[in-house]
Amino acid sequence: MSDTFDRLWAGLAPLGRDRTTGGYRRLSWTPVDAELRAWFTSEAQARGMTVEADGNGNLWAWWPEAGPDAVVTGSHLDSVPNGGGYDGPLGVVSALAAVDELKQRGLRPQRPLAVVVFVEEEGARFGVPRLGSRLLTGAITAERVRGLTDADGVTWARAMTEAGLDPERMGADPERLARIGVFVELHIEQGRFLAHHGVPVGVGATVWPHGRWRLDFSGQADHAGTTRIADRNDPMLPFAETVSAVRRAALEHDAVATVGRVWLTPNTSNSIPSRVRAWLDARAPQEATLRAMVHDIDMAARVAAAEHGVSLSSFQESFFPRVDFPRELCHRLAALVGGETPAPLLSTGAGHDAAILASAVPASMLFVRNPTGISHAPEERVDPADCHAGVAALTEVLADLTEAKRH
Amino acid sequence: MSDTFDRLWAGLAPLGRDRTTGGYRRLSWTPVDAELRAWFTSEAQARGMTVEADGNGNLWAWWPEAGPDAVVTGSHLDSVPNGGGYDGPLGVVSALAAVDELKQRGLRPQRPLAVVVFVEEEGARFGVPRLGSRLLTGAITAERVRGLTDADGVTWARAMTEAGLDPERMGADPERLARIGVFVELHIEQGRFLAHHGVPVGVGATVWPHGRWRLDFSGQADHAGTTRIADRNDPMLPFAETVSAVRRAALEHDAVATVGRVWLTPNTSNSIPSRVRAWLDARAPQEATLRAMVHDIDMAARVAAAEHGVSLSSFQESFFPRVDFPRELCHRLAALVGGETPAPLLSTGAGHDAAILASAVPASMLFVRNPTGISHAPEERVDPADCHAGVAALTEVLADLTEAKRH
Repeated sequence: MSDTFDRLWAGLAPLGRDRTTGGYRRLSWTPVDAELRAWFTSEAQARGMTVEADGNGNLWAWWPEAGPDAVVTGSHLDSVPNGGGYDGPLGVVSALAAVDELKQRGLRPQRPLAVVVFVEEEGARFGVPRLGSRLLTGAITAERVRGLTDADGVTWARAMTEAGLDPERMGADPERLARIGVFVELHIEQGRFLAHHGVPVGVGATVWPHGRWRLDFSGQADHAGTTRIADRNDPMLPFAETVSAVRRAALEHDAVATVGRVWLTPNTSNSIPSRVRAWLDARAPQEATLRAMVHDIDMAARVAAAEHGVSLSSFQESFFPRVDFPRELCHRLAALVGGETPAPLLSTGAGHDAAILASAVPASMLFVRNPTGISHAPEERVDPADCHAGVAALTEVLADLTEAKRH
Repeated sequence: MSDTFDRLWAGLAPLGRDRTTGGYRRLSWTPVDAELRAWFTSEAQARGMTVEADGNGNLWAWWPEAGPDAVVTGSHLDSVPNGGGYDGPLGVVSALAAVDELKQRGLRPQRPLAVVVFVEEEGARFGVPRLGSRLLTGAITAERVRGLTDADGVTWARAMTEAGLDPERMGADPERLARIGVFVELHIEQGRFLAHHGVPVGVGATVWPHGRWRLDFSGQADHAGTTRIADRNDPMLPFAETVSAVRRAALEHDAVATVGRVWLTPNTSNSIPSRVRAWLDARAPQEATLRAMVHDIDMAARVAAAEHGVSLSSFQESFFPRVDFPRELCHRLAALVGGETPAPLLSTGAGHDAAILASAVPASMLFVRNPTGISHAPEERVDPADCHAGVAALTEVLADLTEAKRH
């Protein structure tokens, strides 16, 4: 079992890796993405699985073949810029390794089994996350996604076409969705809950409500050397005060809030900026807490903007409500994974394709221990023994859910 | 006089203008820059002037021809991104219009007269300002400039070569410098001193000491949704506190300080940044004040970085000491420009090619009133009547300095 995981991991590891930082840059519809898709197709076919791309570009590998009441597992292969190698790929590689393990034990699923690779989970290229699963379930329209643009102004439709897929086939796919009996996504934990509890694998029970807000501070561009302080309308000042308010609000509400993306205009050192555009990422266990925190931040930003003679426009760019995975399924997975002591149940602040699918089908997640908690960074890692524990846990889950039997 | 200025201005106005914002993007060694150089060459030749490019790419138009003890005027044609149309070009267009006016009056200079266009005054493309004048005087080495890179990684040497000039000819040019008897640069004022005093033209007496410092805040990239606040080393926080400290320090020291340029890594909304790189532009009337202010800012940044578990490295990227133009020359210009009441003398926080040349030759400046004070922005403007007053003032100055006589 550990051999097949290690071989698969070694094959995937060089794709999209930056040799200097060790980080990954695996953006949708790029040449690296095409290599990742080819790698998955080839590995699945080598296992006798039938691989197809759906209209949204998600890849499905079936064993023995597509059918109703299927057990589906998988994750995504794209990354944030300079991200880690585990966020996404761990679930895909573990799924293929679990298929190998079932075969090695002489087991064959009685329900169709599929391994899926969702496209554009991170939203790193087109700014909106989890597009593959949201398109599939109809949570976002094909029209909106086709028109999304990357930093160079390239539309999703053009990028997808250049990658050899037809964007006109995109959209909700209720027929495909109806075939899914249950979905389980294995994923690296992106915090230290399991590390604190000394357990290699846990079960995802809840995904926090979370969202993204955009704040545009507009002032007056001017010369940095000759404009008196009293004459300035510098949008950098209220932006900076808002960053401090974001931290205060997160602490007060016992939640998390981050400003990780900022665009300046014109972004030259001898000019006062005309505009600072910032994105707020905010998450909390309960939606009421989240709304209250974002309200506090918005109020602080408005006060700061007014004090500096700067105008502010803000709006919600995306919002995902709280998701509770079905209790019964979670407890069943916890029992299968944990043995005598059921595996712990986790809440997570991270969005996942499983949380999108949960609106349509029974879904849950397995998390694998992250010793440092670091994710979305080159330092992200999982101990090899925990990777193998993840494969073993997923194998147990798939054997049980597919009612696998000896030949 | 007003006709010839208006015609010249109308010919130059469309080059590099963004039709949406009305701002200018005139970066060195780009196709627009080539158009600007061709425009100047053609206009100067149409006036019977001899045009040559020096080894550093600066353009010199001579009337009647190059010679010793020359009276030189001029400015630059490059802009910041989305800058105004007057910063630089006003001095070049006014110089050509003043030549026309001298001719119209039947005057001919007894000392050689040159109109110069300095390259890369703003530092907008390669990050370092006033390269044309600094190369000429030897204030910066050709080796350093050749290796400077723009945002796309293109070196100055490559860009200059592609524009058809030979970067191997670059460097200090003491022979050319020795020919300059006096240099007077006409420029739009970038503050509201003249507007407050109700005077269209003033004389530059002092350029404040100023410099640029780079601050790199390095933390730990991590997932924005799953990393507890207590576990974060987010460089955005101390950066934001430093921006607030910059404003406090500027007010305390009665100076100006600006953060107008910031680079984030990786700059994605769902990741805590690993690094925030910011540039501080700081200026004060006296060098001691400037040094004290920058010291206070650096201390505040260090305290903030330490509080957030973030490391900080900072260094001085450029520094220009205070320049006092020769008193006698300034008073002579003030008398020529002002008539009965001498024109007022100004201090300015902006760097200029004249301040670089002042280390080697007698130099001074004429400033033309800016009604709003706005500069480095599309809204920068000068009233047409003040443009014409600027040409009239420069004509008086050139007639006097060149000891122009009737044919």
